Amino acid sequence: MNIYVKLPFNNSYKIFLNQLVDINIDEKVVIVTNDTVSKLHLNYLKQFIFAKQLSVCTILDGEKYKNMDTIDYILNHCFEQKLNRNSYLIAFGGGVIGDMTGFVASIYQRGINFIQIPTTLLSQVDASVGGKTGVNNVYGKNLIGSFYQPKAVYIDPFFLTTLSKKEYNSGISEIIKMAVIFDDKFFEWLKSNDLYDENNIKIAIEKSIKIKSSVVIKDEKEHGVRAALNYGHTFCHVIENETNYDKYLHGEAVGIGMNMANKLAFKLGFINIEILEDIKNLLNKYDIPTNYNIKDIYKFYDSFLLDKKSSNDKIKFILPFGIGNFKIKSDIDKQLVLDTLKEFS
Amino acid sequence: MNIYVKLPFNNSYKIFLNQLVDINIDEKVVIVTNDTVSKLHLNYLKQFIFAKQLSVCTILDGEKYKNMDTIDYILNHCFEQKLNRNSYLIAFGGGVIGDMTGFVASIYQRGINFIQIPTTLLSQVDASVGGKTGVNNVYGKNLIGSFYQPKAVYIDPFFLTTLSKKEYNSGISEIIKMAVIFDDKFFEWLKSNDLYDENNIKIAIEKSIKIKSSVVIKDEKEHGVRAALNYGHTFCHVIENETNYDKYLHGEAVGIGMNMANKLAFKLGFINIEILEDIKNLLNKYDIPTNYNIKDIYKFYDSFLLDKKSSNDKIKFILPFGIGNFKIKSDIDKQLVLDTLKEFS
Repeated sequence: MNIYVKLPFNNSYKIFLNQLVDINIDEKVVIVTNDTVSKLHLNYLKQFIFAKQLSVCTILDGEKYKNMDTIDYILNHCFEQKLNRNSYLIAFGGGVIGDMTGFVASIYQRGINFIQIPTTLLSQVDASVGGKTGVNNVYGKNLIGSFYQPKAVYIDPFFLTTLSKKEYNSGISEIIKMAVIFDDKFFEWLKSNDLYDENNIKIAIEKSIKIKSSVVIKDEKEHGVRAALNYGHTFCHVIENETNYDKYLHGEAVGIGMNMANKLAFKLGFINIEILEDIKNLLNKYDIPTNYNIKDIYKFYDSFLLDKKSSNDKIKFILPFGIGNFKIKSDIDKQLVLDTLKEFS
Repeated sequence: MNIYVKLPFNNSYKIFLNQLVDINIDEKVVIVTNDTVSKLHLNYLKQFIFAKQLSVCTILDGEKYKNMDTIDYILNHCFEQKLNRNSYLIAFGGGVIGDMTGFVASIYQRGINFIQIPTTLLSQVDASVGGKTGVNNVYGKNLIGSFYQPKAVYIDPFFLTTLSKKEYNSGISEIIKMAVIFDDKFFEWLKSNDLYDENNIKIAIEKSIKIKSSVVIKDEKEHGVRAALNYGHTFCHVIENETNYDKYLHGEAVGIGMNMANKLAFKLGFINIEILEDIKNLLNKYDIPTNYNIKDIYKFYDSFLLDKKSSNDKIKFILPFGIGNFKIKSDIDKQLVLDTLKEFS
């Protein structure tokens, strides 16, 4: 039941599904987590960790703390614990914890080991796999970071039982994303199966991770197909930045972003009105928002230029092309994009 | 006359020797340099750079500015210039500039291109090749950073003409290091040839880069033989940290560190008294210091533990074993090291 992410140059790793197992590390280990996850699950986790020296670095919970100041804070903890090149960091929390722990692991003494133990649905199905790390700054989202693979990922659906419905739904948004772009059969399955069901969510997690890993294996550093995983994210990142990362959960902003991308795809004839509505309905079924009020469409458009996928003032859009297929376009007429944005203003 | 550094996974690059050539980049380019180098050589450099958009980010000169604040400063410049994933940074200066520019390149938008154009002898023979990047912090030297290879390195001895004798000598220290550890014939050649001679220094630069590249090709991420390049550096880093990075140039502290390592090697019977004196004399010939006054040998010893090569409280020493050979030892009796340090107190 495990998934093997085969990557070049000694970067391969295993994803352990369905239940936490004992983790034996005869080295110094630091668990990085936040105050929320710590209260709920740290004692549970500690039963599985056997390390030579174990300490816990607890940070504040929330995307707004995903910045260089927090990176400094975690780094200092590592220095105080005198971690060395054989030491391990364990990211224990959602995507924010995973992204920052991975980033610290990539720059502490030019790189040490790290393990992902994601506790949110969103990080279990998406963020914990693939080695993207980073933090936000005033210019935008994940603009400082690195590609740095974990040594292992452990998925335990037990953690999902304490998520709020809002957080749970936010994760479903990324599951829907994978289906729309890569797998029409999975999309059909999603339409007729309830993801609040314990068994169904396990199936959906495994399916999503399989899709994500197969894409990462093909294109670890996002020179090609991996960019498709950013469907909805070009819009989403601007929305998150505009709303200071505290109005929407990431998956919620992705939901809005996908709907924006879909409207653009519809204008281009890439999808028909039924698909547009199908995706929107599936998102709304799980209370994932699809509307947003853009105040200034020109400012919104200009913010695309700092997106990492954009280059030479060309904005790269990932658009669905039917269900289970996509197109990456860098030559879309500005007016057409502005017209799409206008529908959200 | 060029050297090719062949590395796995698309990381190979060329080192262009002897003279700057035109560099055509149809992308956005930022030259990172310091106020000293800028005044002397920026106009000269600009004749060779053909870019779509060119800007210059100038920082203050000195190892004491090699910290995260300066990294933030360079990052902000890149964001203001809206660099994208195809953009290039050019490190134009000594090792400090190279280490920081490489680090920024490795974390800006999860990695962009960078080119090394080293202007000091030390960075030409050593620091610019191999992809080690990083900054210092209160805990020690180069403790935050990454392995990140440049796309190309351009060596132009013209820049050496404006170096102070002290800086020039500091570079010679790393040349001597390469010879002692890897090449007895080169060491003999160094003993009988004057490195203030224009032709000799070209020979020594090429030889040093060849040694360095061959080691990096074998072991990019320092799991084995590459550690030998740190001969003298375990001691050197503590000295630099103790003296706030402003008493000694890096090569000078390496000179002291090599002499310390040699005394330890002598105690272990790895080298005889003639070799010990030979190396010391060669260093002193170029006014490279070999003495230092340790105030507290126990504190000095404890500082080794944060060295990146140390692990699990075992300190890794790189010691000469005759000339042109070395031993990496992690099991040296603490008292023997303390006795060695006592000779410098």
